[in-house]
Amino acid sequence: MAKMSFENHIMKQFDEELEEIRTRLMEMGGKVEQQLQNSIRAISDADSKLAEDVIAEEQHVDEMEVDIDEACILIIARRQPAASDLRLVMMVTKAVNDLERIGDEAKKIANHAVILAEQGDSSEGYTEVRHLGQSVSRMLANALDAFARFDVDAAMRTLEEDKQIDLDYKTALRELVTYMMEDPRSISRVINVLWVLRSLERIGDHAKNLCEQIVFVVKGKDIRHQK
Amino acid sequence: MAKMSFENHIMKQFDEELEEIRTRLMEMGGKVEQQLQNSIRAISDADSKLAEDVIAEEQHVDEMEVDIDEACILIIARRQPAASDLRLVMMVTKAVNDLERIGDEAKKIANHAVILAEQGDSSEGYTEVRHLGQSVSRMLANALDAFARFDVDAAMRTLEEDKQIDLDYKTALRELVTYMMEDPRSISRVINVLWVLRSLERIGDHAKNLCEQIVFVVKGKDIRHQK
Repeated sequence: MAKMSFENHIMKQFDEELEEIRTRLMEMGGKVEQQLQNSIRAISDADSKLAEDVIAEEQHVDEMEVDIDEACILIIARRQPAASDLRLVMMVTKAVNDLERIGDEAKKIANHAVILAEQGDSSEGYTEVRHLGQSVSRMLANALDAFARFDVDAAMRTLEEDKQIDLDYKTALRELVTYMMEDPRSISRVINVLWVLRSLERIGDHAKNLCEQIVFVVKGKDIRHQK
Repeated sequence: MAKMSFENHIMKQFDEELEEIRTRLMEMGGKVEQQLQNSIRAISDADSKLAEDVIAEEQHVDEMEVDIDEACILIIARRQPAASDLRLVMMVTKAVNDLERIGDEAKKIANHAVILAEQGDSSEGYTEVRHLGQSVSRMLANALDAFARFDVDAAMRTLEEDKQIDLDYKTALRELVTYMMEDPRSISRVINVLWVLRSLERIGDHAKNLCEQIVFVVKGKDIRHQK
């Protein structure tokens, strides 16, 4: 009986630890979501101050990654989880990596926002940034939502959004090439917008990875790289 | 005595399993190294056939990632490794991810090689591609070498190469902008070269990640995100 309750105690601690890394991962998700939105707004509003905030905050995201990763290794070492618990912990170490890269892309967008704001008030390509930015923000929000509820169906639906994002991205690129050809003096400037679109497209890919990880944890099935 | 030898047997099996995932990781490293070199050569030589090979082979790299990842989870579940063994397995799951992304970037370069070959014989920007391609290939080879020998000093030296790559990348971008401004009709074409340079720069980042992981395994110290 004493042994039973000792085991129960251990199990409860373990569940709490798992729950805690999940909570921290969701916090990190909320943080990068905000970083993304602020970086897009910094471009639209030519708001260098906001862009600088995003750049400064990236360090915080990096720290979250290292901390959560460490917590995962500790859990594995101490609790030796099996089956779905182990998959969950392994998935968290992958998910933090994707979130960190989303934070990194948001920082790159913010860097370009600073340059674009310095270069003055032309806004060629901003409609494309706003449009793609909205789709990507929505996809990331949906991915994090699916994650919070371990909802495989929502994850599968969200996965599909990446296709439209890729199409919109390609259309936007063609628009930018037209702007550059019409006004070659704008090339340097428009290339900054080009990098912003690329970062947004990459964020879509990372959100897709998050969805694949949800499927992996819940179904135990690796759906990466399926055509 | 019987128990001893049973434990020894288990230990030996475990060492063999660890050694096996290391070997498979090195094979995967060799594979993506070759993919990178072929994709660069496909551009220089306008060799669409070679580019198509790179594109077709990417699936093989993807499979290697999934297989090695699965092997890592199995090892953790069955052997419950601790301390440096656990760090090694965790590192392998991160390293395969970086290798897969390098393979992915090589495939993107190959895609652009096909488009560039179709667009005819202008070779603006090819010198820049060859130059950056060589530096990045060398850095990746050094990272894999450091990995094979778990050589922290070599990893630290290789890490530093990324700085020069970033500088060369920025110089090359400026060159491309000049080409576009001089001849706006070349814009679409030169943008393809721009994406190639970006992929090369990203591969440098992934090679840097590999080096950081070596330090993490050997020293148990997470040096990511240190400024």
